[in-house]
Amino acid sequence: MSVLVVGSIALDTVKTPAAEHTDLLGGSASYAAVSASFFAPVKLVGVVGDDFPRAHLDFLTHRKIDLSGLQQVEGKTFRWSGEYMVDMNTRETRSVELNVFEHFTPTLNASHNATPIVLLANIAPSLQSHVLDQMNRPQFTVADTMDLWINIARGDLEALLKRVDMLILNDGEARLFTGENNLIKAGHKIRSMGPHYVAIKKGEHGCLLFGENEFFSCPAFPLETIHDPTGAGDTFAGGLAGHLAANVTGAVTFADLRHAVVYGSVLASFNVEAFSLERLRSLQPAEITARYEAFRALSQFEGNK
Amino acid sequence: MSVLVVGSIALDTVKTPAAEHTDLLGGSASYAAVSASFFAPVKLVGVVGDDFPRAHLDFLTHRKIDLSGLQQVEGKTFRWSGEYMVDMNTRETRSVELNVFEHFTPTLNASHNATPIVLLANIAPSLQSHVLDQMNRPQFTVADTMDLWINIARGDLEALLKRVDMLILNDGEARLFTGENNLIKAGHKIRSMGPHYVAIKKGEHGCLLFGENEFFSCPAFPLETIHDPTGAGDTFAGGLAGHLAANVTGAVTFADLRHAVVYGSVLASFNVEAFSLERLRSLQPAEITARYEAFRALSQFEGNK
Repeated sequence: MSVLVVGSIALDTVKTPAAEHTDLLGGSASYAAVSASFFAPVKLVGVVGDDFPRAHLDFLTHRKIDLSGLQQVEGKTFRWSGEYMVDMNTRETRSVELNVFEHFTPTLNASHNATPIVLLANIAPSLQSHVLDQMNRPQFTVADTMDLWINIARGDLEALLKRVDMLILNDGEARLFTGENNLIKAGHKIRSMGPHYVAIKKGEHGCLLFGENEFFSCPAFPLETIHDPTGAGDTFAGGLAGHLAANVTGAVTFADLRHAVVYGSVLASFNVEAFSLERLRSLQPAEITARYEAFRALSQFEGNK
Repeated sequence: MSVLVVGSIALDTVKTPAAEHTDLLGGSASYAAVSASFFAPVKLVGVVGDDFPRAHLDFLTHRKIDLSGLQQVEGKTFRWSGEYMVDMNTRETRSVELNVFEHFTPTLNASHNATPIVLLANIAPSLQSHVLDQMNRPQFTVADTMDLWINIARGDLEALLKRVDMLILNDGEARLFTGENNLIKAGHKIRSMGPHYVAIKKGEHGCLLFGENEFFSCPAFPLETIHDPTGAGDTFAGGLAGHLAANVTGAVTFADLRHAVVYGSVLASFNVEAFSLERLRSLQPAEITARYEAFRALSQFEGNK
């Protein structure tokens, strides 16, 4: 099965204590689409300006991503600039230029609206809902979000939650959204707002997956150095959705989602090893398999005497 | 095999946003010994004053803990008083009265110094070393510590580390001790200071276990309400040491430690469900087995289709 990925496409400037790079391929949909492409055919819906580098388009095409839904319009591409502090956990946004993204409306064509797995990567929840308005009964719908929308578009987000199968957000966002400090309470509370499944990402502490009377705690891969955390969450969501598309035939089960969460974590753990999407550019399927085995080894405590 | 537990025995006053209780059974050795007693015979070494309630002694005896190493001396028992803030993660110490603990020297008798498993629960590292001076080649030695000793007795702690098989500490203490923000780096750095194994406790995020080229990430049990976190770390250490004593015959392997860390986490997850040691007072072996199975279910992602 294939995955439809809708979200932002950006040119990023990222500064870390070690280095600074400009005009990197960024945006939630770029990370998610490339990550998903390691598992299943991907259709990307988004917008870029006429300044968008040919090399970035070539990379997406090389990943066999269907770009028929990519609008290229007059003007400048969405730009984001951020800086990471010494601990690599604290991030400061230095500038945001919406540019062509300001008037973006995701418009699906006939080849998009029957895609079985839909990943609504991080964009305004009203746009995420607008995508669902155009879909023809997808099999499984995953939405990602961020603190910005919780703060300025809570009503839109709550409306979206009644229409998606799964919501992905990080620990700080889950606390902000629910007012619950305890993440277990927060996960259950978000489920009660609509989605059957909720994934709460905790960075270095892994990820929690909530279902009806079911729970999974996915560890994080032990990394000594994080080169660039940008896009880790989007890469996680893309790997998760891509793995579902490749491996699920009937209804999505909690066991399917456990595997998908691990594969999402595998892809995210690679992504932070280099700037932008550089690590995924060279990533080989055998490396994914090896790291999946590493996840198994580090979380296993039975049958390993 | 049996476990020798050396540490503090206290009368605690604990205030949470929900309740306040006084003269509770507390101290690192009390929690650790009771926790270990669910798995193996325990010998307790510590000191109490002449005010120590008979009921607390009866409880320890009821748990079949050997109290021949418990000194009861003239004066008042060590007292600690603390208050937890609304999030139950932040704790403020309101008062500490060392009392008879101030001049405590752990003295082992002939029945103690050949105990195969030794748990040096949290006390001054110089006293922990003094215990080892009196031991006759124990099979496995575990030490717990805290921020206080890192701050005021770093030299003693470093000397101790060269003599123990395993160190247990929490995430904040690991960062304080090593100056490393990244816990993976911190774990490796502590191992390089002596102990073959290091366990870093992360509270709601579980626990990391480091060995030579081996790593285990233990999840936390998903609890919606924490009634009293006091002693969770001591209970973890006691469950771990007790499980090793009950299940290991030859040299301790990394696989043994994975299991022991899970059982330590199981016991700690029960302990925070009520004040002081109240939950362990009623805990049944079948509940331990059931929660171990729950840990398996929540961390498993293969073979569960």
